[in-house]
Amino acid sequence: MKKLMKEIDGGVCAPQGFKAGGIRCGIKPASQKRDLALIYAERPCTAAAQFTTNRVKAASILVTQEHLAQGNIRGVIANSGNANACTGDAGLAAARRMAELAAEHCMLKPEEVAVASTGVIGVPLPMVAIESGIGALADALRGDAAGHEAALEAIMTTDTRKKAGSLEIEIGGVPVRLGGMVKGSGMIHPNMATMLAIITTDACITRNALDQALKRAVKHSFNRVTVDGDTSTNDMILVMANGAGGNPAINDPASPDFDIFALALEQLCVTLARAMARDGEGATRLVTVTVRGATDEDTAEVLAKSVASSSLVKAACFGADANWGRVLCALGYSGAAFDPATVEVTFASRAGTITVCRGGVSLPFSEDTAKQILSEEEIEIQVDLQSDVPGAGGPGEAVVWGCDLSYEYVKINGDYRS
Amino acid sequence: MKKLMKEIDGGVCAPQGFKAGGIRCGIKPASQKRDLALIYAERPCTAAAQFTTNRVKAASILVTQEHLAQGNIRGVIANSGNANACTGDAGLAAARRMAELAAEHCMLKPEEVAVASTGVIGVPLPMVAIESGIGALADALRGDAAGHEAALEAIMTTDTRKKAGSLEIEIGGVPVRLGGMVKGSGMIHPNMATMLAIITTDACITRNALDQALKRAVKHSFNRVTVDGDTSTNDMILVMANGAGGNPAINDPASPDFDIFALALEQLCVTLARAMARDGEGATRLVTVTVRGATDEDTAEVLAKSVASSSLVKAACFGADANWGRVLCALGYSGAAFDPATVEVTFASRAGTITVCRGGVSLPFSEDTAKQILSEEEIEIQVDLQSDVPGAGGPGEAVVWGCDLSYEYVKINGDYRS
Repeated sequence: MKKLMKEIDGGVCAPQGFKAGGIRCGIKPASQKRDLALIYAERPCTAAAQFTTNRVKAASILVTQEHLAQGNIRGVIANSGNANACTGDAGLAAARRMAELAAEHCMLKPEEVAVASTGVIGVPLPMVAIESGIGALADALRGDAAGHEAALEAIMTTDTRKKAGSLEIEIGGVPVRLGGMVKGSGMIHPNMATMLAIITTDACITRNALDQALKRAVKHSFNRVTVDGDTSTNDMILVMANGAGGNPAINDPASPDFDIFALALEQLCVTLARAMARDGEGATRLVTVTVRGATDEDTAEVLAKSVASSSLVKAACFGADANWGRVLCALGYSGAAFDPATVEVTFASRAGTITVCRGGVSLPFSEDTAKQILSEEEIEIQVDLQSDVPGAGGPGEAVVWGCDLSYEYVKINGDYRS
Repeated sequence: MKKLMKEIDGGVCAPQGFKAGGIRCGIKPASQKRDLALIYAERPCTAAAQFTTNRVKAASILVTQEHLAQGNIRGVIANSGNANACTGDAGLAAARRMAELAAEHCMLKPEEVAVASTGVIGVPLPMVAIESGIGALADALRGDAAGHEAALEAIMTTDTRKKAGSLEIEIGGVPVRLGGMVKGSGMIHPNMATMLAIITTDACITRNALDQALKRAVKHSFNRVTVDGDTSTNDMILVMANGAGGNPAINDPASPDFDIFALALEQLCVTLARAMARDGEGATRLVTVTVRGATDEDTAEVLAKSVASSSLVKAACFGADANWGRVLCALGYSGAAFDPATVEVTFASRAGTITVCRGGVSLPFSEDTAKQILSEEEIEIQVDLQSDVPGAGGPGEAVVWGCDLSYEYVKINGDYRS
């Protein structure tokens, strides 16, 4: 059987017909890091997006929502170092001006441009820096991996790793590519109020189908990540599809072509989401929580998120401590229904697998082995609600990604603004 | 006007007719600390209690609920060092045996005894230690402050301070006393799944009235405390009223006498709850969050809890960083309705008061002054939703107590079991 999906290089520039770039314009005055990015599609796109559920929305979110309501998006201007949130009418004017500047230099209409900002809240955006930098940014646009890398660097804040991915699939015998980048570490929590993710594809797909595919992908990826439970004012995920791949247009969410595309988009989003959890502020471990045997998928998700979000579980992961009692405790206060008397808890990593609780009570286990398993950089907490009891549990299953809670998290966030 | 409520000494032994004691029986093998407590009323009581909302309930909770359903409680046996949770039928048998042992030595029926446990989850309770210690514990019962202190020490785990209080009020011309102790620092979160609190009073009050008074008190005290968002398997608050004060019996929740008593109980619970927040694991500051101008009290409470529970706000408090953007962000993702455009945020402590945000946007303020204010041990975050805008906001107000998030929290919880 032919491989249906292959990883490729290039990030958001992997699909045909996209350019990207990033420069340092001076939004982060004390830093030599890039802070302004542009991603641009050479031809019209269909676009879909999801936005933060926070009631306090940054100016960039409001403006992008407005633009998306008016039509499709084919350019994104994004800055780091300043969230342009809680900045009132001046902030809104600044976000609109960012779109205008990008539009002018890319020969687009302002309403074809999405705006994204990330950084400190409540500080006026230094528009002078952006006005003076936009020319150089437009000149820096490139259609290759270097363009992608520069743009990605320019949207990073406390991120310690570049988080990106790209895939190739085949639709109707035609190769189609998807590429994406994500920024996010602190303030990461489910419900999409999550991060800044920009995804490009040269698939030919209608806006409605793209929207459906994005919803499905986000549900199983970004909405299953938790770092600290705080959902931000600024975050969004945007996907632009420019049709340059030349596949038969995907317009029916019930078609096999749609499934191929949607699965690839989900796979890309999972890659980005996992990378984001792994790069949680101060995180030393990626913690994957799997819940099986719940009544349904939603119940499994609530339970898994409760475990992955628990400060006590997270601190135990930091200490590589097999404190399964905290796992049960977190399941218990999740609000979801399950029978505590049939729960099985297993810790796993590439160092091994150890079941520490069955039927809701302790199993004898080697603390040394458990410590060894939990000392890995990627660990799993597997909860099986059905356990060995016939009739208990159900088919519901969900995977959630989180990270541990370290001294470093506290350090990073104790004085973020200075 | 005569002072209606005065602070007195003695804790749970301040009311007439109560004895308390605490010993070291060996539940914490590696420690010289006390680990077994008994509190006993010399005459029958009315009793009321509230229990954890966690679906995973410790054996002590199940047994105490059972006993309370059968009648009134007049004795409490409590241990630290082992939660006796997730321990199955053997755990349940152990909790029942604890009640029997206490009953035997206090000449009570087992169902008159409440059982409380706190400590590590999932480890069998060493009943041998309790069986062999119970005689000495019963002999150690005293009706004075020393008895109270010993019992309090015996229920402490990671607590760094003794948290207790006692009050005297007058009902129908007769002095009536209330006393209480609380244990709790990690795993403290609203919804009562919170801590271990034992309150005694020599008031004469019917069970129904006592129950009403406790509900009201807990709503405004323990349920407004948050340390880490984790709600425990074990926690409860129990109040026993032995009538020894000789006041005219309180039986009508609409009577002025009820109000006097209920207010005193609430005051005592607030004292204990604040002390608990202040003693949050690794906490360096008590953080009081006040929300005013919400549609109603419940909305104000949801908003205040969201701010007090935010890891990012808590880390900023640790760093004495006036990061009001995080306050707005936490309000925004709380799920409660409010208008971000009229929010005012003020930081206050005994070092001063500084308003940093008005109308949802930044006010110019001195970072040095803010730092000074936030560097105090007790700080306040005051949110006024109504701000200066006529027609916005409402009469809803709530106070929530929390603490900062420090390196120490992570350290304490990174390897709690060893």
